[in-house]
Amino acid sequence: MTDRYTADALAGYVEALFAAAGLEVEKAALVAPLMVEADLMGHTTHGLQLVPPYLAALADGSMAPSGQPDVLSDRGPVVAWDGRRLSGVWLTATAVDLAVERARQYGTCTVSIRRAHHIACLAAFLERATSNGMMITLTCSDPSVASVAPYGGTRAVYTPNPLAVGIPTSGDPILVDISASITTNGLTGRLHKEGRMLDHDWLIDADGNPARDPAVLFTDPPGTILPVGGLDHGHKGYGMALTVEALTQALAGHGRADPPEGWGAGVWVQVQDPTAFSGSDAFTRQTDRLAELCRTNPPRPGVGAVRLPGDGAMARKRTALADGVALYPGIVDALGDWAGKLGVTAPDPI
Amino acid sequence: MTDRYTADALAGYVEALFAAAGLEVEKAALVAPLMVEADLMGHTTHGLQLVPPYLAALADGSMAPSGQPDVLSDRGPVVAWDGRRLSGVWLTATAVDLAVERARQYGTCTVSIRRAHHIACLAAFLERATSNGMMITLTCSDPSVASVAPYGGTRAVYTPNPLAVGIPTSGDPILVDISASITTNGLTGRLHKEGRMLDHDWLIDADGNPARDPAVLFTDPPGTILPVGGLDHGHKGYGMALTVEALTQALAGHGRADPPEGWGAGVWVQVQDPTAFSGSDAFTRQTDRLAELCRTNPPRPGVGAVRLPGDGAMARKRTALADGVALYPGIVDALGDWAGKLGVTAPDPI
Repeated sequence: MTDRYTADALAGYVEALFAAAGLEVEKAALVAPLMVEADLMGHTTHGLQLVPPYLAALADGSMAPSGQPDVLSDRGPVVAWDGRRLSGVWLTATAVDLAVERARQYGTCTVSIRRAHHIACLAAFLERATSNGMMITLTCSDPSVASVAPYGGTRAVYTPNPLAVGIPTSGDPILVDISASITTNGLTGRLHKEGRMLDHDWLIDADGNPARDPAVLFTDPPGTILPVGGLDHGHKGYGMALTVEALTQALAGHGRADPPEGWGAGVWVQVQDPTAFSGSDAFTRQTDRLAELCRTNPPRPGVGAVRLPGDGAMARKRTALADGVALYPGIVDALGDWAGKLGVTAPDPI
Repeated sequence: MTDRYTADALAGYVEALFAAAGLEVEKAALVAPLMVEADLMGHTTHGLQLVPPYLAALADGSMAPSGQPDVLSDRGPVVAWDGRRLSGVWLTATAVDLAVERARQYGTCTVSIRRAHHIACLAAFLERATSNGMMITLTCSDPSVASVAPYGGTRAVYTPNPLAVGIPTSGDPILVDISASITTNGLTGRLHKEGRMLDHDWLIDADGNPARDPAVLFTDPPGTILPVGGLDHGHKGYGMALTVEALTQALAGHGRADPPEGWGAGVWVQVQDPTAFSGSDAFTRQTDRLAELCRTNPPRPGVGAVRLPGDGAMARKRTALADGVALYPGIVDALGDWAGKLGVTAPDPI
């Protein structure tokens, strides 16, 4: 039987670990619940699994522990920051909150961040905007890492380049969280460690042959993850990926044209306030109808019911808040090692 | 040997046809070259092929011939219009030009349009922004039409929901033009008419079985076009499609929750000025490097060279401007029928 913990106990634990590792107290307090949020939603590769490597980054100085981003530009509805390699989770949450505030005045606000550290789970930030009735688009890329090749090519140029969108309805928000590649670095890394295969040929080896064994990503030269659409119509994922590169690196003015600085992110956040367009009620009247048309859609054979993006995550979150969070195998031990080093007491399971 | 025409002769012809059909002269002058632009780029389902149905829409009153959109909201960086079923091509071009002008001041400008008529070829609008050094995102949907089902479902809810992005470099712009479905209404309609098959199982029939015969879209009930990612990872295209619905209908305050008004579009245009972020040079330094990494990528077996989105269209455009435009079979005759009715003289081939 896997141990379960309350979300609050885990957040307190993670906050204490970050603070003990030297992260500013107000930053630790903002970041910790967002790490737990990912596990609540079931995004187990992007939640507490990332806390040990983040602690290591604080220890080796590759994540800055304190201070504010440098403001490169501020036009009101557009803000550009140099993140100075501060916690990407803290920078992103702070950017979302600023964009929500500014969007009330301008109708939209866009925040571009260069040189953030890794930002963890994009889906975890969306409700900060949707709970205010606003639509949010959030995307990032890591200019120091490459695992996906351009469509038709064989050498990695960019990251999976995720894109998350939060869309308010009068009930639960629609929470889109997709990447421009079929699968992710997190999942392929985990499966490779566990000696497991992907379900389909979502990769190509270094010669361009289809593959489902994540080991092809660890050869020299390495294979690559296929773009969304695969060998069949991968120009679609390629187009998405280039768009994300432009938003997160070209607008940020820092990217693959610069020397790699290590694990990190370029980030682009945009919030749109429906009241500046046609009004909040007009917005949710459309999204409610869209949600209804999807949820009541007759499913294909083998599909139980048509769901909306975010339905599963919101359901998992409710269950985890009620019954406690069961962390993915290995995470409790990895956190325990750091707790020992940093003199932090681990919480008891419920 | 197929007849070829100069781009200018075709634009003059189309302008004369639209003017003779009652479209305001300044609108005919703006729309005509944009219709030709699509054929120049090789988007032959979305160029002059659409002129006869647009002329029919002017004739039956479903496209409004004159006047301005109603301004529903104007916050400076956000503008919302009711398009009053004016030409979608004219509305979109006018919105892009306004967004470029406003983005110089605010850094970004977003224009939402409800109740436009059909907007034709998204890629044709992008250079209006990229030639000014700006990044543009343009998307639309038609709330009166549905041909794509939500992932896992069998009944059409929405349109292919295209998304086009123009990204400046120091050379040719990157011109992304993708849809959230694997293939489009235009292509499946043309193949069905010609009794041809798709290359792959990009459709499902009304029971949810994979199909490549576009005839499955014309049964009762009809089958549907699969989302990007297909049966394998179609949640990606589903997420894109819902995002486009929210941008183009929910923000516009008009969509599938309203009674259908016939062939038309909800439109969302956003322009971002790199000078408001990190500067134009910083932007193109990144996009130039990205373009170089893609174009020099060693190709997979069977692939001649890795190209960037837009490379093919820009090359076709240069050739067509130099050697003349060869229209897709049937288009010259269809235009000729209207020219006869409207008393317009068709141009001579070169």
